[in-house]
Amino acid sequence: MSDWLAGLDRRAALRAKAGLTRRLRPRGAADTVVDLAGNDYLGLSRHPAVVEAAAVALTGYGLGATGSRLVRGTTEPHAALEEALASWLGVERALVFSSGYLANLAAVRALVEPGTLLISDAHNHASLIDGCRISRGDVEVTPHGDVAAVDAALAAAPGRPAVVVTESIFSVDGDLAPLRQLHGTVRRHGALLLVDDAHALGLIGPEGAGGVAAAGLAGEPDVVVTATLSKSLGGAGGLVAGPAPLIRDLIDTGRTFIFDTALPPAVAAGVLAATRLTRDGATLRAELADRAAAAVRRLTAAGLTVSAPAGGVISVDAPGPEAAVDWAADCLDRGVAVGCFRPPSTPDGRSRIRLTVNVGVPRVDFDRALDVIVECAP
Amino acid sequence: MSDWLAGLDRRAALRAKAGLTRRLRPRGAADTVVDLAGNDYLGLSRHPAVVEAAAVALTGYGLGATGSRLVRGTTEPHAALEEALASWLGVERALVFSSGYLANLAAVRALVEPGTLLISDAHNHASLIDGCRISRGDVEVTPHGDVAAVDAALAAAPGRPAVVVTESIFSVDGDLAPLRQLHGTVRRHGALLLVDDAHALGLIGPEGAGGVAAAGLAGEPDVVVTATLSKSLGGAGGLVAGPAPLIRDLIDTGRTFIFDTALPPAVAAGVLAATRLTRDGATLRAELADRAAAAVRRLTAAGLTVSAPAGGVISVDAPGPEAAVDWAADCLDRGVAVGCFRPPSTPDGRSRIRLTVNVGVPRVDFDRALDVIVECAP
Ligand SMILES: Cc1ncc(COP(=O)(O)O)c(C=O)c1O
Ligand SMILES: Cc1ncc(COP(=O)(O)O)c(C=O)c1O
Repeated sequence: MSDWLAGLDRRAALRAKAGLTRRLRPRGAADTVVDLAGNDYLGLSRHPAVVEAAAVALTGYGLGATGSRLVRGTTEPHAALEEALASWLGVERALVFSSGYLANLAAVRALVEPGTLLISDAHNHASLIDGCRISRGDVEVTPHGDVAAVDAALAAAPGRPAVVVTESIFSVDGDLAPLRQLHGTVRRHGALLLVDDAHALGLIGPEGAGGVAAAGLAGEPDVVVTATLSKSLGGAGGLVAGPAPLIRDLIDTGRTFIFDTALPPAVAAGVLAATRLTRDGATLRAELADRAAAAVRRLTAAGLTVSAPAGGVISVDAPGPEAAVDWAADCLDRGVAVGCFRPPSTPDGRSRIRLTVNVGVPRVDFDRALDVIVECAP
Repeated sequence: MSDWLAGLDRRAALRAKAGLTRRLRPRGAADTVVDLAGNDYLGLSRHPAVVEAAAVALTGYGLGATGSRLVRGTTEPHAALEEALASWLGVERALVFSSGYLANLAAVRALVEPGTLLISDAHNHASLIDGCRISRGDVEVTPHGDVAAVDAALAAAPGRPAVVVTESIFSVDGDLAPLRQLHGTVRRHGALLLVDDAHALGLIGPEGAGGVAAAGLAGEPDVVVTATLSKSLGGAGGLVAGPAPLIRDLIDTGRTFIFDTALPPAVAAGVLAATRLTRDGATLRAELADRAAAAVRRLTAAGLTVSAPAGGVISVDAPGPEAAVDWAADCLDRGVAVGCFRPPSTPDGRSRIRLTVNVGVPRVDFDRALDVIVECAP
């Protein structure tokens, strides 16, 4: 036991030496920091219609769902949200989870049977990686965005059930996976394609229906979509969307669906309102694209190396991990929150700062924040 | 692909034949069913102070947390809630997760190093089982509540790091684990004890601080507590509580903490209010104990076989899986929701119906519900 605590202290000291200590910074409701770090892309978390819908459900249902989805946790807002999501995404059915993390764990596991090969992009999110781990399939990690490697992995396992697992817009660099080509390969080999649309939902595709819809793959029977309801939809929760028999299977057997308390009804109701605003959100999306382009121009003009954003994530190269940390800290000192990605939590050993475009921030603050980022650059 | 969908349909047909199809039943805000199935033990999900605190934070912060805890997701309600929980539970530090499920995944994983032996009670919750699976420790499942078996497993692995994993009040039968004896064994062998206090928090122990506190183990350096904020606290979210170095480790390295959107601030604020009410909730706990005893008397007098509830979960034997399903369905037809547990989701192949005591239900409705359960008995 004292060994245990001593071991934890030892590892903490090593992390501190490597500059890998993380800090929680509570913000207040009146916080004035310009947020280019969170994922409230369309600014909907504070939209009056979203807050009002949540408040009404809070009064009607109380705070918690009081049970799992199958026991007492499914309320009318949950059911309405699932219908709205299925119709928006163009799939047979959608199922709401309490988080995108738990949705990913369920989705990967539901697609794995004994002997299944999981082919996972090197930039995939922790929840997809954990989904692969928990499902006990054999996992092959392919280089980021490398369709030929995926094809080779599938070709090397003829007749074997296989699932290709990818994000659409990646959370690390904001680039878009080659979904049409991946699907072509998957189809040719009789495999399945699982796409985490977390950072694309609401931002690209017809009516903002996400990366899968943008690639013309909505409703394809060999495609499964997951997403979080916490980014452009401004709330919390997760979703799995796809063919009805898959959703049936998740309801009957998905452990992270069955044995988990449902999303609070107020959150489901707020996200439902956000779903409507997002479908009708062409103006918001145009503004987001305009800001993303402006950010790339501004930062490139200042000599920085910037990713080409497919949605609202922009990554900017930093010369090293300490420089990335200092850069983000200097920005924060000047009232601008940006993300900081560095090894070991980057998949490729590179360090970056990461901006997210947040349409809820006044344009003048957004533009000023870009100046701050440039002025703080190492 | 068509193979895949056909396979899903085939498995669904098998489940249907075995009576294992599950159904989502959306309830409305004006639903009048008497709830003896959910986990809102103290009725706090609808308490005016809880709803009001959540409403204030909803207005102040908007709906979602907009990012992970380490990015933009930690708000003042999160920080205040963590302090309140640590003080209540008598531990150095507490960390809030978006669900109890994700808290359990993180807690188990944080305690496992290469070669660790995980000793897991046969009745443990799916999230603990998945935690064992995802952590890649070697797992030994011991018979339910069997301290001698735990001791033997530890004795058979001298010098090896080991973690004993248990619930306090078990969700299946509502019985209490022999925590003091388990801790004695754990201490003797230099192992660790991980206790999921989900169904005990708020119900037993000094100021309702849970099963670990009730056993006099609060703050012990070899004990780690997890819980959900969705049961007696009436909200959503999860927690890990224990020595500060463990919490430090989870913040720096816990994947389901770092890579998951934070609990919505409004939920954190509502749960904080519920925490205060629960600490001061001696009257609610007395009422709960009184109702649990009344239920046992009433059901036993009717010739039913009833578990001895340590908190708010009461399980009642059913003659078989179909009888359990019919029993619960008949109760629901008469306006009373009860749970139904049957294989394969019971750990011991037995079928039961399960009642939860909900102090938020008017006493007269609670008593009438007991009559309904007796009248519908097979
Ligand atoms: C790509 C991706 N997938 C899944 C998740 C998890 O979703 P949630 O935060 O709802 O658990 C996130 C972020 O949080 C993400 O960025
Ligand atoms: C014993 C136990 N542990 C963990 C959980 C998971 O907590 P949550 O619902 O917050 O994910 C539950 C129930 O949901 C439970 O009964």
